[in-house]
Amino acid sequence: MADDSKRAFGPDDWHGTPATDLGRPGEFPFTRGVYPKMYTERLWTMRQYAGFGTAEETNGRFRTLLAAGQTGLSTAFDLPTQMGFDSDHPMAEGEVGRVGVAIDTVEDLHALFREIPLGQVSTSMTINATAPILLAMYVVVGEEQGVARKQLQGTVQNDVLKEYIARGTYIYPAEPSLRLVVDLFRFVADEGMNFNPISISGYHMREAGATAAQEVGFTLANACEYVRRAVDAGLDVNRFGPRLSFFFAAHNDLFEEVAKFRAARRLWARLARERFGADDQTCRLRFHTQTGGVTLQAQQPLNNVVRVTVQALAATLGGTQSLHTNGYDEALALPTAESATLALRTQQILGYESGLQQAIDPLAGSWYVEALTDRIEAEARAIIAEVDALGGAAAAVTRGFFQEAIAESAWRLQQAQESGAQVVVGVNRFTDDAPPPALTRPDYSALAQRQVARLREVKARRDAATVARTLAEVGTAAGGSVPLMGPIVAAVRARATLGEISDTLRAVWGEYRTA
Amino acid sequence: MADDSKRAFGPDDWHGTPATDLGRPGEFPFTRGVYPKMYTERLWTMRQYAGFGTAEETNGRFRTLLAAGQTGLSTAFDLPTQMGFDSDHPMAEGEVGRVGVAIDTVEDLHALFREIPLGQVSTSMTINATAPILLAMYVVVGEEQGVARKQLQGTVQNDVLKEYIARGTYIYPAEPSLRLVVDLFRFVADEGMNFNPISISGYHMREAGATAAQEVGFTLANACEYVRRAVDAGLDVNRFGPRLSFFFAAHNDLFEEVAKFRAARRLWARLARERFGADDQTCRLRFHTQTGGVTLQAQQPLNNVVRVTVQALAATLGGTQSLHTNGYDEALALPTAESATLALRTQQILGYESGLQQAIDPLAGSWYVEALTDRIEAEARAIIAEVDALGGAAAAVTRGFFQEAIAESAWRLQQAQESGAQVVVGVNRFTDDAPPPALTRPDYSALAQRQVARLREVKARRDAATVARTLAEVGTAAGGSVPLMGPIVAAVRARATLGEISDTLRAVWGEYRTA
Repeated sequence: MADDSKRAFGPDDWHGTPATDLGRPGEFPFTRGVYPKMYTERLWTMRQYAGFGTAEETNGRFRTLLAAGQTGLSTAFDLPTQMGFDSDHPMAEGEVGRVGVAIDTVEDLHALFREIPLGQVSTSMTINATAPILLAMYVVVGEEQGVARKQLQGTVQNDVLKEYIARGTYIYPAEPSLRLVVDLFRFVADEGMNFNPISISGYHMREAGATAAQEVGFTLANACEYVRRAVDAGLDVNRFGPRLSFFFAAHNDLFEEVAKFRAARRLWARLARERFGADDQTCRLRFHTQTGGVTLQAQQPLNNVVRVTVQALAATLGGTQSLHTNGYDEALALPTAESATLALRTQQILGYESGLQQAIDPLAGSWYVEALTDRIEAEARAIIAEVDALGGAAAAVTRGFFQEAIAESAWRLQQAQESGAQVVVGVNRFTDDAPPPALTRPDYSALAQRQVARLREVKARRDAATVARTLAEVGTAAGGSVPLMGPIVAAVRARATLGEISDTLRAVWGEYRTA
Repeated sequence: MADDSKRAFGPDDWHGTPATDLGRPGEFPFTRGVYPKMYTERLWTMRQYAGFGTAEETNGRFRTLLAAGQTGLSTAFDLPTQMGFDSDHPMAEGEVGRVGVAIDTVEDLHALFREIPLGQVSTSMTINATAPILLAMYVVVGEEQGVARKQLQGTVQNDVLKEYIARGTYIYPAEPSLRLVVDLFRFVADEGMNFNPISISGYHMREAGATAAQEVGFTLANACEYVRRAVDAGLDVNRFGPRLSFFFAAHNDLFEEVAKFRAARRLWARLARERFGADDQTCRLRFHTQTGGVTLQAQQPLNNVVRVTVQALAATLGGTQSLHTNGYDEALALPTAESATLALRTQQILGYESGLQQAIDPLAGSWYVEALTDRIEAEARAIIAEVDALGGAAAAVTRGFFQEAIAESAWRLQQAQESGAQVVVGVNRFTDDAPPPALTRPDYSALAQRQVARLREVKARRDAATVARTLAEVGTAAGGSVPLMGPIVAAVRARATLGEISDTLRAVWGEYRTA
C-alpha cells in the first residue's frame, strides 16, 4: 500500500534533478528505462509461464501460445524436477506433472521443444537448485538440434537465496549453492551466450507478504551478495554483470508499482556502480514481471481479468522487459487454454490498442510518481543497509532476517484485509451468495505412469559406463573447486538423469536444513 | 490516436506554469479536478446505464445494481420514448422496450422507481427531445412519493445539438428545441433543484468517429451556444451555470484520454470566464463518462473486459464525476445481469483495490501528459474558433460543419483499421477461427403488449377534460414565449401521455428536417 498522506502532489513534492535522478531512457541511472527507445521501438516480450503433465502436453500449450502471438516461452517445472528427484522417486509420488512439466532426462527437454527451434525462441526456465542441470540440458538439446550455444537465448531463475527466504525449492547448503550460482555466471560468460544465468527474484517474497519497498530491498540485497561472490571468485563484474536479470511481481496499487520498478532500476544502477565500479551495461536492471498470484480470488473469478489488466499496466508503465499475465482462473486451477489465451490477449490489447507504444516512461515528471519513486528507493536502501550490517544477504538468511520481516508484513496485510481496511472486491466487500467454483485438481496419474515408463526406456538405452563415469566426474568436481558446468553438461549428454546428478551433489554437499 | 512523435517526453516538453495552467484541485482553471479532495474523500459515482422492456423489468435491474453496490442510477429509454411516440403509435412498432425502457405516462415512471425513494438516489436520464417531459414526470413522481423538488438529484441529457450532429433523436427544429433547453435551465434554477438540466455530450460524436480533440472542441462549442442562448434569454450565467454537466467517452488510448479530460476542464473554465464572465462555480466542468461502445468487439468478447478496464482507468485518472462501464457482451446484445455486474465490479476494483484513492490527479506534472493536455486544449480551441467564424454551433450544425468533420475522422480511423496500422486485437490481428457469438435480439413483443395495455388502462382512468385543458395550455405556451415547464408538469400530472404532449408541440413547431 502506498503511504496514507492522501492528497494532491505538486511541484514541491519532488526534489529530484531530472538529469541526475532520471536520466534519459537508456542512460544511467536508467530510471526511465534500460533502452533508449523502449516500447516505441519494440514491445516487451509476452512470455506466459506454462507447464503441466509430461513434456508433450506442455509442448502443445507452448505451440498454442506461440500461434496466438506469444513472443517468448516460460517453463514451469513440477516439484520433483525442482527438488532434484526423478519421476520414479518415492518423493515424487503424486507430484509428477502437477505444478509444472516433469523433466528427468534431456530426452524430455527434446520433447518439450519438439518443432520449436531453439535458435528462434527465448526460453525462461523457473528452476533454481537444479538450474545447472536444466541449463546443461538446454545446451545439449541445442547441440542436438544443431543450434550453437551462442545462439541460445533465455533465462534460468537460479536464485537460491530467495528459495531459502520464501519459495522453498532448495537442496544444498548455502555455500555450495552459491558456488553453483557463480558457476553459471562463469559458464554463460565464458561461452559468450546470450543467456541470463540468473533471474534475481523479488516475486516470491512479495507473494509471501513483503511490501513493495521490501521487494526491492531484499532483491537487490541478494543481487549484491551474488555479485560479491562472483567477484570474490575472480570474475570480472563487467563480463557477467550485463547478463544478470531480475524478476518482480506486479500487484494492485498501480502507481506504487510503477514507482517500484523505476526505483529498483535506479537503485541497482547506483549500488552496482558504488559497490562494484560497474559499467553502464552492468548497471542496467532488466526485469521480467508476473502479475500477482496472491491477488487473484476464487470468488467472482472474472474479476481477476480486471486485476490482471491493472497489474499488467503497472508492469509496462514501469518498463518491464517481459511479462506473464495470470489466467483469471489460477486461484482455482492451472489455467485452461482459454484463460491463458485471454491473459495473452490482455497484453496484446495493452501493447497494441492502449497507446503504450507512443511514449517512453510516460509517467516521468508526475510529482506523485516521482515522489513515490524516491520514497521506495530510500526505504529499499535503508533495508539493504540493515542487511549489510548483518554481513550480507546469505548471513541475513541464516539469521532469519528476511523471513521475519516478511512474516510481519504479511500479518499486517492480513489484518488490513480481515478488518476490511483493505477492500478485496467480492471477498470482504461486494460479495454475493454464489459459492466460489470448486478447486480442480486434474488427475495426472496416467501421465505420471507414462513419464516413468519413458524414464526407464531412456535408462535402458543409454551407455551405463558413460553415465557412471560422467557422474563420477561431477562428484569429483563438487568435492574440489573446479567449475561444475562442464561435467554436468557431459553427464546430461550421456543421458544421466536429473535425480542422479542431484544425488551425486547431495552425496558430496549434504542438504540445507532450516534452523 | 495520440500524435506520432514517439519518444521520451522530458522537462523541455512542457512549457506550462503549475499555478496558472494547473491550479490546485478544486481551483481555477480546474485542470486537476473540480473538487479539492476528489477521490481521496469520495469515489466517483458508479452509474451503470440500464433499461429494457417495461418499467418493471428495468426496476428489477436497477435493484440488482443497487444491491451490488452501484451508487447512482442511469436510465436508457426506448426509441419511441426518445422520439415522442407512445407505445401504441405505429412508429413504435417493434421498438417498444428494445433499446431501453418504454415510458408513456407518469405511471410508468412510478413503476420504474418502485421501492426506490427518489430522495435517496441520483438518477441520470438519457433523454433529449423529450427531456422536458421526463423531467416533469420525475418531478411528479417525487411529488406523489412525497419528495420535494429541492431534494431530487439527477441529470437529463437534454443536449439537442449533438442529436442533430450525431445521435438522431431530435423532433423539433433547432430554434424551439433550443428554447426548450433554456426552459429547463430556468426551471431547475428557479426551483432551486440539485438537478443537472443538461449533460452536454461529446460521447456520441466520439462514437461516430470524432477524434479526442474534436470531442472536446465540438462539445464546448455546443456548450457556448447553450449558455449564450440562456444569457440572451435573460438568465444569469452564475445561477444556471453551476448545474451544467458534461458527458464524454473514454476510448483506448490511455494517456490521450486522461489528457482530454484535463484539457476539457481547463478549456471550459477559460471559455466560460472569457466569454461569459462566469464565476468559479460555473467554470467547473463536471462530467460523466461512459467507456467506448464502438471499441467493443464481437470477436473474443472477454477481451472487452480488458478494454473496459483501461478505459475506466482513463476516466478515473481524468477525474470523472461518474462512470458507466460497458458490459463485455454489449457488442452482441444488451448486457446480461452477469456482464453488468462484472462491469460494476471493474469500477469497484479500480476504486478500492488499485490505489486511486491515494492521490488527486496523479499524473499531474508528467511531461507527456501535460504536453498532451496542452496539445488537446490548443486543438479544441482552434476548432471552437472555426465554429465561431460560422456563427456558433447552431449555425454550424445547419452548415453540416460538425457532421463533415466527423465523417472525415471516421473515414481515417476506418482506413487505419483496414490497413492494420491501427491494431484491433482479435479483429485485424491475433484472430482465431472461432466464429463470433451470434447477435441476440430478445423478443419483447409480449412486453410491448403489456405496455400498450397499461397505457390504455391509464387513459381510461384519467380525467379527459383535465388532460385536454392541460395539453391546450402546453400548446398555447409553445405558440407564445412563456416558459414551458409549468404547463408540461401540469399535463404530466393529469396523466397526459408523452406522445400527446409531443404531438401538441409538433403541431405548433413542426419537425426538424435535414437538408
